[in-house]
Amino acid sequence: MIECVPNVSEGRNTVVVDAIVAVITAVPGILLLHRTSDPDHNRSVITFAGPEEAVLEAAVRAAIKSAETIDLTQHKGVHPRLGALDVLPFVPLGDTALSTCVDIAHRAGKRIWLEAGVPVYFYEAAARQPGRMRLEDVRRGQFEGLRREVVLDETKQPDLGGPTLHPTAGAVIVGARKFLIAFNINLYTADLSVAKDIAKAVRTSSGGFPAVKALGFALPSRGKVQVSMNLTDFDQTPLHVVYQAVVRLAAERGVEVAESELIGLIPRRALEQAAAGLLQLSGFNPQRVIETRLETLQYKPPHLH
Amino acid sequence: MIECVPNVSEGRNTVVVDAIVAVITAVPGILLLHRTSDPDHNRSVITFAGPEEAVLEAAVRAAIKSAETIDLTQHKGVHPRLGALDVLPFVPLGDTALSTCVDIAHRAGKRIWLEAGVPVYFYEAAARQPGRMRLEDVRRGQFEGLRREVVLDETKQPDLGGPTLHPTAGAVIVGARKFLIAFNINLYTADLSVAKDIAKAVRTSSGGFPAVKALGFALPSRGKVQVSMNLTDFDQTPLHVVYQAVVRLAAERGVEVAESELIGLIPRRALEQAAAGLLQLSGFNPQRVIETRLETLQYKPPHLH
Repeated sequence: MIECVPNVSEGRNTVVVDAIVAVITAVPGILLLHRTSDPDHNRSVITFAGPEEAVLEAAVRAAIKSAETIDLTQHKGVHPRLGALDVLPFVPLGDTALSTCVDIAHRAGKRIWLEAGVPVYFYEAAARQPGRMRLEDVRRGQFEGLRREVVLDETKQPDLGGPTLHPTAGAVIVGARKFLIAFNINLYTADLSVAKDIAKAVRTSSGGFPAVKALGFALPSRGKVQVSMNLTDFDQTPLHVVYQAVVRLAAERGVEVAESELIGLIPRRALEQAAAGLLQLSGFNPQRVIETRLETLQYKPPHLH
Repeated sequence: MIECVPNVSEGRNTVVVDAIVAVITAVPGILLLHRTSDPDHNRSVITFAGPEEAVLEAAVRAAIKSAETIDLTQHKGVHPRLGALDVLPFVPLGDTALSTCVDIAHRAGKRIWLEAGVPVYFYEAAARQPGRMRLEDVRRGQFEGLRREVVLDETKQPDLGGPTLHPTAGAVIVGARKFLIAFNINLYTADLSVAKDIAKAVRTSSGGFPAVKALGFALPSRGKVQVSMNLTDFDQTPLHVVYQAVVRLAAERGVEVAESELIGLIPRRALEQAAAGLLQLSGFNPQRVIETRLETLQYKPPHLH
């Protein structure tokens, strides 16, 4: 079993997102785990899982359908993006190795270039160039900037395809990585600088917590701003640690947290870790959860009423 | 499957508690889920589960062993208690009905009186008198008070056995109830009145939250005080609601929370509810947990690494 989390550059037109989801779920063996669309980001995140070959097939079909239906020359949204299907990570589940997902990523990239005609960059564990490990480095300049730069600067060339980007679908950034928690905290202020300052304070790249990526966004449709985070290793930096830091940093600026949101799914262990942390539970471990304890003792989990 | 949570009046002498646990786990089919001992309470809570008849047998053996090994005339601890085996609740798991546990409680009570010679009071869903629904009403006066009162006041007579309490083992309070979360919050102060005031503010009986029982205890061995709570219905009052209230009430008194602790086990749904509440997660539901989502979609749960 592996998971795949395509991020597509359409968060407003449901018809387009439905069509992409439909080609994914039409593949036998695919389980649609979650989907979410954000109008301010103008972006949708689709989470699905299944056996490796089924996930590969569904991912390629999603890339083809995205290129057919999304025109980046017309796209506006607060979230950075390079492609119609912008990011395509493969994630190991269960006992699957990360290297299996690297292989699937490379095969998916090859088929996307051959079958959709969209160039491909590889990132994280699937990266083929040292400077392309980090998604934000690959995506720097976004669609508008990079489509000019690729013809001027050879080091900007895609890993597969090119020499130019696709005129309307840009490029797909395909990768393999560990499970990532996408966690946003919305603040009761319209002052974007507050979100940007807090994002800068918590993210790894500017000296914050390890394994945290963060950006500050405006949410004009909600009159709020957002600290939008990816936690790439919740053992290094748990959910509650960034939550408490953001609450404190916002309070120092006289701003309250409105609410937080998970984009996609979260591992059970990460959520339990957050509960134990925020409740200040001493000596907590997952065996204190009755269903987990019973499962461990090889009984079927009961449903508690 | 049912659960049984004997509370025994020994929290310092491991040999005694080990002996009680041993008679429980010697019954085929019994799963020991958890055990915990508190020296200040001088009390241990043992949590086990299994098929109904096995749980009944193990509970009766625990009552016999407790009466043999614990002498309440020598017992001191901050937690109220009436018996050597003080409280014996049976709890339905899975699709088991509460009425099944009422039946098991009545059969266990009968055997405890016949085989251990210890009188029995029935409480909660197993109560046989209207004034005996609440554990705290049954236990009022504790061992020292009630053993005098039973001979003076006919309304204090046990439901089974008597007319006097057992001279060293007191009486067993046997019941059936829904799952209960035992949750303590320890405070950085030695001032017992702080814990007592906060307990009074949060408990149902003095106008606090619904489905909350609470007492304030000193923890002399730790130099702290404790708000010790039972949440009898976490849908009515979730864990995070009482946690946040205790933090706030303590802060108003200039006191900080040291840590909290779960006694025994917690249902998964209660812990996830607390995480979502404390993280201010909007739109959370258990299907956002990847293992739960995969289980629902009828795959086996993966272990995420």
